[in-house]
Amino acid sequence: MPPSERSGGPTSAAGAAGFASLGDATTSQAAFRDELFARGLLIESGVPGLYGRGALFEEIRARFDALVDAAAAVDQPELMRFPPLLPREQLESSGYLHSFPHLAGSVFAFAGSEADALAQEERAARHEDWSEHQQMTDLALVPAACYPVYPAIASRGPLPASGVVVDAGAAWVFRHEPSHDPARMQCFHQREIVRIGSPSEVLEWRDQWSQRGLALLRGLGLAAERANAADPFFGRGGRMLAANQRQQELKFELLVPLGGEEATAVTSFNYHQEHFAHRHQLLLADGTTAHTACLGFGQERIVLALLFAHGFEPASWPAEVRSRLWGS
Amino acid sequence: MPPSERSGGPTSAAGAAGFASLGDATTSQAAFRDELFARGLLIESGVPGLYGRGALFEEIRARFDALVDAAAAVDQPELMRFPPLLPREQLESSGYLHSFPHLAGSVFAFAGSEADALAQEERAARHEDWSEHQQMTDLALVPAACYPVYPAIASRGPLPASGVVVDAGAAWVFRHEPSHDPARMQCFHQREIVRIGSPSEVLEWRDQWSQRGLALLRGLGLAAERANAADPFFGRGGRMLAANQRQQELKFELLVPLGGEEATAVTSFNYHQEHFAHRHQLLLADGTTAHTACLGFGQERIVLALLFAHGFEPASWPAEVRSRLWGS
Repeated sequence: MPPSERSGGPTSAAGAAGFASLGDATTSQAAFRDELFARGLLIESGVPGLYGRGALFEEIRARFDALVDAAAAVDQPELMRFPPLLPREQLESSGYLHSFPHLAGSVFAFAGSEADALAQEERAARHEDWSEHQQMTDLALVPAACYPVYPAIASRGPLPASGVVVDAGAAWVFRHEPSHDPARMQCFHQREIVRIGSPSEVLEWRDQWSQRGLALLRGLGLAAERANAADPFFGRGGRMLAANQRQQELKFELLVPLGGEEATAVTSFNYHQEHFAHRHQLLLADGTTAHTACLGFGQERIVLALLFAHGFEPASWPAEVRSRLWGS
Repeated sequence: MPPSERSGGPTSAAGAAGFASLGDATTSQAAFRDELFARGLLIESGVPGLYGRGALFEEIRARFDALVDAAAAVDQPELMRFPPLLPREQLESSGYLHSFPHLAGSVFAFAGSEADALAQEERAARHEDWSEHQQMTDLALVPAACYPVYPAIASRGPLPASGVVVDAGAAWVFRHEPSHDPARMQCFHQREIVRIGSPSEVLEWRDQWSQRGLALLRGLGLAAERANAADPFFGRGGRMLAANQRQQELKFELLVPLGGEEATAVTSFNYHQEHFAHRHQLLLADGTTAHTACLGFGQERIVLALLFAHGFEPASWPAEVRSRLWGS
């Protein structure tokens, strides 16, 4: 799941120089965030978009995750789980730095002598710049939960007949876009499932899932709507990529009200055609290049949408919503 | 839980200059790792110490996690969950860069124009050095799962009478120490619980838990032993810190056989005295500085120890072990 274009949220437009400016939140988004902090649903860290989660927030997220498990069972997916970091070389080969350089994160670490370590520590303790002591490692932050899936499957050789479905679980992903809008986190869980197969298998799977996803969200009392969408590609050239993506209907999103002026994307369904399969040499049983698609539920956004729609006390949520989540 | 000194594993001694050299694995550790890959328990990424997890590996980890839930229930801990990143400022203030500069990771991101982005992408696509386009952000990798807990509790003001117990769950932590030993991962789950209170409350809690932890591991058929321990402090000055830590009995570990010449630490119990409380101004109800302790189960190491002790097929594990994990 590449980054969704942020329907409804403030746009974190990448500046012409320097880091993207801090995304502003609407008044109602800021009030919502403050209430989430006050109730311990989210825990402030001091960095916009980086939060701890309280027990109730995590319980709702886990209950939603179980509903996705149930909806996915018919696919009999293979389960794989990946850490929040991936090999830098994979990020370099993925095209992500072409499309979304402003959102990527890389991991740096110390390299030097004991004297260097001392100099670094002294600067750091004074909160001064210690970046010169850090060097790029061979690791980067996972930008989308499906990225590690493609090389893992490709390493097995040609796909079995009818391809594969991989459930990558609820993985931590990173987007460098600080914001006070609680729905725009820098570090959040994507529950992602990936389909790799022939073009028709992949497209049919994506379309089935966009219906399943819509039913899942509406069943929880969310006013979800499906919309054609595009990713927030970087720079002027990105506009053409986005227009092309919309025209080919490569991306759908499910949007729900979440305190912004427009609805917010909480789920996306992405058809990559040969993009990932070509890079990782994912081959069908007949030796031709596979196609891939993925879906991603933005779990924190869905928890926020439930709290926004039904209030901060799940005990008083509509009976049907409680029943679906808690079975009672 | 600060990093455990690596009993039994190869030492990733920080070199006098440059990155730590790649930790070697013993022949049996390397053979064990290859079997884990072949069976899909772990998934190779290309970077030593960074692995995906297969369904069975994750199921064992989740079952173990549930046993810790049950053992922790008597504490009635408050649940908090944190992302794999923390504010850089917290890392700077924590003392970690003094003790473990060689293990820390910081997050860098792109800052520049469209032309800069293009130059970065071209270098990256050729797997050349693109680090000059990346700048330090205000985020770093979480080095130990308890680090975000202290400021979260401190922000509430003085502690209630009898302090608090926080269950930080199974969180992703980072250690920059690439190795071919499968038990020495760069990115793994620590199941961590934190006690904040008076010195006697904290010490009593730690000692109770070291007994509970020992019973938990032995109940799973692991030949666990408790040992006084020290952290892998950096540099020549670190030797004195380690000696002091041992002499004051601030750190205990539970060690199990895991393919190395000596047993491997899979759990640690750490008494920080005033270290974290002083930095975060954690105060007892009477206004004096609190003390803290934490425990950390290294979940991947425990799964590996179970596979190492009982074999790769949980269906043929001893009935008592199966019964504890699966209830059947």
